[in-house]
Amino acid sequence: MSVAVLDRDVTGRGTSYVAAGMLAPVSEAGFGEAARHVLELGLRSAGIWPAFASDLEAASGMEVGLRRTGTLVVARDDDEARELERQLAFRQSLELRTERLRASAAREREPGLAPTVRLAIEAPDDHSVDPRQVLQALRRACEIAGVDIRERAAVESIELDGAGGQVRGLHLHGSGRVSAGRVVLAAGAWTGQIAGLPRDAQVPVRPVKGQILRLRDPAGAGLLGRVVRFEGGYLVPRADGRYVLGATVEEKGFELSPTAGGTYELLRDASELVPGVSELQIEELCVGLRPGTPDNAPVIGPGAVEGLTWATGHHRNGILLAPLTAGLVVETLLGKTEDPLLCACDPGRFMGVSGWDLQSGELQSSIGAQR
Amino acid sequence: MSVAVLDRDVTGRGTSYVAAGMLAPVSEAGFGEAARHVLELGLRSAGIWPAFASDLEAASGMEVGLRRTGTLVVARDDDEARELERQLAFRQSLELRTERLRASAAREREPGLAPTVRLAIEAPDDHSVDPRQVLQALRRACEIAGVDIRERAAVESIELDGAGGQVRGLHLHGSGRVSAGRVVLAAGAWTGQIAGLPRDAQVPVRPVKGQILRLRDPAGAGLLGRVVRFEGGYLVPRADGRYVLGATVEEKGFELSPTAGGTYELLRDASELVPGVSELQIEELCVGLRPGTPDNAPVIGPGAVEGLTWATGHHRNGILLAPLTAGLVVETLLGKTEDPLLCACDPGRFMGVSGWDLQSGELQSSIGAQR
Repeated sequence: MSVAVLDRDVTGRGTSYVAAGMLAPVSEAGFGEAARHVLELGLRSAGIWPAFASDLEAASGMEVGLRRTGTLVVARDDDEARELERQLAFRQSLELRTERLRASAAREREPGLAPTVRLAIEAPDDHSVDPRQVLQALRRACEIAGVDIRERAAVESIELDGAGGQVRGLHLHGSGRVSAGRVVLAAGAWTGQIAGLPRDAQVPVRPVKGQILRLRDPAGAGLLGRVVRFEGGYLVPRADGRYVLGATVEEKGFELSPTAGGTYELLRDASELVPGVSELQIEELCVGLRPGTPDNAPVIGPGAVEGLTWATGHHRNGILLAPLTAGLVVETLLGKTEDPLLCACDPGRFMGVSGWDLQSGELQSSIGAQR
Repeated sequence: MSVAVLDRDVTGRGTSYVAAGMLAPVSEAGFGEAARHVLELGLRSAGIWPAFASDLEAASGMEVGLRRTGTLVVARDDDEARELERQLAFRQSLELRTERLRASAAREREPGLAPTVRLAIEAPDDHSVDPRQVLQALRRACEIAGVDIRERAAVESIELDGAGGQVRGLHLHGSGRVSAGRVVLAAGAWTGQIAGLPRDAQVPVRPVKGQILRLRDPAGAGLLGRVVRFEGGYLVPRADGRYVLGATVEEKGFELSPTAGGTYELLRDASELVPGVSELQIEELCVGLRPGTPDNAPVIGPGAVEGLTWATGHHRNGILLAPLTAGLVVETLLGKTEDPLLCACDPGRFMGVSGWDLQSGELQSSIGAQR
């Protein structure tokens, strides 16, 4: 296929550029049906990641920073420890690989942890990647493969045929039109700002603000080896002594400023848990907008309009689900729609649900979601 | 006189660009002989500021953001309240205008203060300016006056005559020489890096790191009217809903990175004291290097080398002392050295004191200071 990527800004500078890059389906696992679907997708995608990373490194000649370090989830007091026991039992009931660690064992594995740690779970298969490296490598690999990358080309609307059932192309902001029989809508939190679709062919996606700090240890790597997660945040170590400290989860609309409160709480929790954090340099305060659907599960595959494939709504799991999403999108474009995973990601699952403001993705009335 | 300004970087982007701009000799007043000199200088300069500001605004056609709001110094617990009573008595013994405020009266004047405030002092004559506006206006006024401003022109050394007693000019890094019979050394924390002076004609100046946050209230001005000072920091409101939150005082050498610990402590103290701070956006994390002398008082006036005038070592008071320093420098250049204030700023007061590392400004041995 002949492929053009249209980016409203510079490629690789959106939400993915801010993401920490955890490949952590086990520690992210949540209760409920939608969360179960996300877990299933996450485990599948985590399984693909190592091969995807080496393919991408081979295709681009660049590294992507995949680190197989595992993840520690820690509790800082008795309340958090009780919750962690519940989380452990839940993961074991799903046969997810996890290990219960007493505080002393956790501190043996990660001596940077404070003595106040009460309990920890190790998820040995939850790894991380450096999204900025991934994005650069993806761009390079696309260029080599002949993809036409157009930056500062914001899509204003999708053009349909007269009957409104078939994609014909795209209109750009300002001027310009791109003719296309197939369109993949992967606009993240900005999905709802692309016009042209009939109301019942749309999908509600809202921005979920996340504040993240990028830290650097002037003494080099070594403060932490593993990803460390705690109630309200995480610390992701890179190989070179850099750390990503995230993240707030805020329903604030399209608001891209770091705040005193968000930064304060992340620094407070992280330095309480890993006292050495105090000595780290702050390289950046970043804000990203995660694309959230009503059930916070992604939207991948064909919808009501022929020729339009959805790939959005990945919320906290955009980097983790990238290779799986790519595979499902390609299958859709090739007309193969029998993968059972596509069912969980069906863009049609919110159809007929009224009360969603499609621009903001927010529920405007008290009418509940129904299939 | 024909004047050239040589700046190692872009003008107005050094420590002054980071400074909060408090004109606060009363709340800065400290115990001890050197501090008494700094107070005297500060009171004199604060008195000059209003006329200086209006002259500068007239000369440049630009505003400098002088705000006559006064300053509240607050105590958050009983220990701090006891210390504040001591500070109040000290200021009253010096006949400095101050008012003791119970917590309720302080919160009446500044409703943004937390209920945890125990006691406050109001210093009604301690005001503030916006140093960034001052710097822009100074640059413009200099240009209009015909000053030759040379940026990215770092001075490597001062050239003396054969006997070493008289200034002849300056050598620039890379190449280039400027012929000058009179040189004003105003290189701030970088003073010691300018070579060419005999050892006993030098002055020890060390960098004192300060971390500062620049905050902005998306709701506009109103959270605070006055400058608010507390143990370990201050909040300086600008007219437009922006706030400067500072500052750490760190002996770390030439280290210009914001740290997790510094940022955390400033945010913790400020949001504990003014809970509305949590909602503010963080626009910048900045770091400045204050120039500190062994007694932390400035060095202004003539030294051992003829033709060389000192104007450095202003530590926390560079903006406050700017107009006074300018006046003293001009007097020195005109050969008038009878001002008694010049005595307190005498560059010769550290001469013959061994043990100072003149590059870093740090005391290398345990030999005490002596005149």
